[in-house]
Amino acid sequence: MKPSVKDMYKFKESFIDKEVEVEGWIKTKRSSKKLGFIELNDGTFFKNLQVIYEENINDFDQIEKLPIYTAIKVIGRVVETPNAKQPFEIRAQEISVLAPSDNDYPIQKKKHSLEYLRTLQHLRPRTNTFNAVFRVRSLMAYAIHKFFQEKGFVYVTTPIITASDAEGAGEMFRVTTLDLNNLPMTENGEIDLKEDFFGKETNLTVSGQLEAEAFALAFKNVYTFGPTFRAENSNTARHAAEFWMIEPEIAFADLLDDMKLAEEMFKYIIKYVLENAKEEMAFFDSFISNGLIDRLTNIINSDFGVVTYTEAIDLLKKANVKFQFPVEWGMDLQTEHERYLTEQEFKKPIFVIDYPKEIKAFYMRVNEDNKTVAAMDLLVPGVGEIIGGSQREERLDVLLEKMRANDMNLDEYWWYIELRKYGGVKHAGFGLGFERAVMYITGMSNIRDVIPFPRTVNSCDF
Amino acid sequence: MKPSVKDMYKFKESFIDKEVEVEGWIKTKRSSKKLGFIELNDGTFFKNLQVIYEENINDFDQIEKLPIYTAIKVIGRVVETPNAKQPFEIRAQEISVLAPSDNDYPIQKKKHSLEYLRTLQHLRPRTNTFNAVFRVRSLMAYAIHKFFQEKGFVYVTTPIITASDAEGAGEMFRVTTLDLNNLPMTENGEIDLKEDFFGKETNLTVSGQLEAEAFALAFKNVYTFGPTFRAENSNTARHAAEFWMIEPEIAFADLLDDMKLAEEMFKYIIKYVLENAKEEMAFFDSFISNGLIDRLTNIINSDFGVVTYTEAIDLLKKANVKFQFPVEWGMDLQTEHERYLTEQEFKKPIFVIDYPKEIKAFYMRVNEDNKTVAAMDLLVPGVGEIIGGSQREERLDVLLEKMRANDMNLDEYWWYIELRKYGGVKHAGFGLGFERAVMYITGMSNIRDVIPFPRTVNSCDF
Repeated sequence: MKPSVKDMYKFKESFIDKEVEVEGWIKTKRSSKKLGFIELNDGTFFKNLQVIYEENINDFDQIEKLPIYTAIKVIGRVVETPNAKQPFEIRAQEISVLAPSDNDYPIQKKKHSLEYLRTLQHLRPRTNTFNAVFRVRSLMAYAIHKFFQEKGFVYVTTPIITASDAEGAGEMFRVTTLDLNNLPMTENGEIDLKEDFFGKETNLTVSGQLEAEAFALAFKNVYTFGPTFRAENSNTARHAAEFWMIEPEIAFADLLDDMKLAEEMFKYIIKYVLENAKEEMAFFDSFISNGLIDRLTNIINSDFGVVTYTEAIDLLKKANVKFQFPVEWGMDLQTEHERYLTEQEFKKPIFVIDYPKEIKAFYMRVNEDNKTVAAMDLLVPGVGEIIGGSQREERLDVLLEKMRANDMNLDEYWWYIELRKYGGVKHAGFGLGFERAVMYITGMSNIRDVIPFPRTVNSCDF
Repeated sequence: MKPSVKDMYKFKESFIDKEVEVEGWIKTKRSSKKLGFIELNDGTFFKNLQVIYEENINDFDQIEKLPIYTAIKVIGRVVETPNAKQPFEIRAQEISVLAPSDNDYPIQKKKHSLEYLRTLQHLRPRTNTFNAVFRVRSLMAYAIHKFFQEKGFVYVTTPIITASDAEGAGEMFRVTTLDLNNLPMTENGEIDLKEDFFGKETNLTVSGQLEAEAFALAFKNVYTFGPTFRAENSNTARHAAEFWMIEPEIAFADLLDDMKLAEEMFKYIIKYVLENAKEEMAFFDSFISNGLIDRLTNIINSDFGVVTYTEAIDLLKKANVKFQFPVEWGMDLQTEHERYLTEQEFKKPIFVIDYPKEIKAFYMRVNEDNKTVAAMDLLVPGVGEIIGGSQREERLDVLLEKMRANDMNLDEYWWYIELRKYGGVKHAGFGLGFERAVMYITGMSNIRDVIPFPRTVNSCDF
């Protein structure tokens, strides 16, 4: 039998007292004169296999000296170890080297800092912390697809290269095939954009929402899940230049439907991870963020609250807390305000709805009061805002008025505007930054540590 | 009861003789003096609901005149129609407008050309053809995630912005935040790349393979699924500047394991679509590509063949066919050769393996003969190559020699090279162009018609 490490744990009963052949890398090892121990893993499971070898094995002296991360093949007998930490171990009869490693392997047994491991992005997924992070990230991505697909949502891949600037949501990266050392110029002395690949100026997308709206008005329920970009010079633990975003869009639906969907999705992801990454979550709970599993379980079991922005401002004004940013109606909520509301005031996740229209994007639906828009932010303890969404302005005249007030080029948005002319029913949607969600669920505090190969200001290695 | 159109079809028994409230868009309509028919759909299912209304309804005259794609709400009774085309219909008691449409709605009942519909990318998913294409695309994406996740593969999102040029796989798009009208220059008169966002020249990725290899050497089995880019000036029906790619990478695995995985995955996707998009596939079979379902079923039931490149060249030389490109050992196979082999010679999908090393990428493993590499292309009838993969060169000295022969900058690839130093076991992988696969399964013949908002030379609208 040639099981994976995962198989060995999953079907352990069927291997006891049997001979197995296992391949994997040496994660750690120790030995005395007559006995050697190897923690072996092939990457399929969070826990290692314990391999024991004795003096009488082939090449005891050589095996003892094998560097960390040597790939080996072990043939041996599986033995139950009811009194040990691990449930079973392999008594090796034969150990052979599949691929060597060097003694200068840069990740040794001692605890390395996360900063140091960021310089080794090709090797860090081999460490416990990053192995757990990236497996959970993968499971979360799948949970998101599973959630929407099982509800009949259609997955839309919206374009990465775009000629519009969406909502002016942020600084953009330019995409070009022009030779910067030899730019083609027009007679007027301007750069000849006709010579560029697309015949015009193009950028990397900041959001797929507008395109998702077009698809929601064909399929009712759709979602995007793809990379988005911000060329912001923000060197913080929460900003990356390249990150993934999930943007569902639902038609025949209003803000309430949108909030219900966000709550259901968020709980589904957490539940999926708690059920499918037990070992990883126990690791995070012990070594990264104490109490993490309790906090996440609490989210699943809470009914999320709802409060209007206006009520939230009142609560903040009455709060017996000194905020860095003074509170007044019309302001954007800062993280300190958001965290106070969800952590102190409500002690659970809450939706803040109906924000002043001046501080929100042009496409959000204006409420009856003509002062606020049908927007919602989901605030969660420990973080603040994690999801932002809105009902979209479906009334052609109101939309046009707002776009003009925002000095937008209507010609560029002709197709978006046209969606309101032909069966533009009420619809709504939201955005979830995937990496923020991974940080929340793993307890990791730097976005650089939840992206396989992060891109930030002045950092594009690997 | 307020069911979706999908619910109505899925649970039709439970709705018969009941009153329902249904929302949707008018897809088509016709009426006589006393009787009107509306084909209604809310986008959740491929088939429409038939709604019948009579003279005695509210506003018969108004309803009759509603333009295509008006959104309406219908309250009515569900009646079985055993002798009609559709299994049931709704006898309307009340019809009200949710969102108007205009009489100038640009997609009328007559058949529009695919070319015309490409100018209406925001509306075309409302047509039968594109509705079917984009739902199948979504189901295929999910099938791919499901296939790999159920096998324990870890999903890795590899970077979109990259500083390396991978394998020189093609022309790249430059990504920059420099002001093209005012480029910063160094004292030497060169563009000052330190001023760019990442402090160096960056491009859009052409492949995530090298990064996926790093993750396979931590997790054993991984896959990527994300956008990739080619700035090639190829205005063909099969080339897009932006497309999605799936790149699995497996460790402790050789070319044979790689081929097994490719065959299993390809069959799984087809099976999933045939089972979960019955209506859409029947539509493609009737209106886009006659015999499609039989051809796909044949793929599922075939054992894929294997032939070496050298054997393939012999077969082509013996073939009683006049090829445009003459056949000789050392040449790259053209589509005409590939199609002859899979359609005429083998009459089923085949893997061609062991290509001359000169025509394949540097990272492919050199075979014992020192002339060929452990590469595989999967050829399928009707298309030719659909998957390309290889076992990777895991031997440090051989890899370095090939990189030097290819004039590659070794410093740039330090981390990729290092993977061979520390437990670099044998590993393999392949790439599947997602859109090519969607074309194959839907029978659509232009890549522009299987991407929601395609990007090609001089075309970046929407």
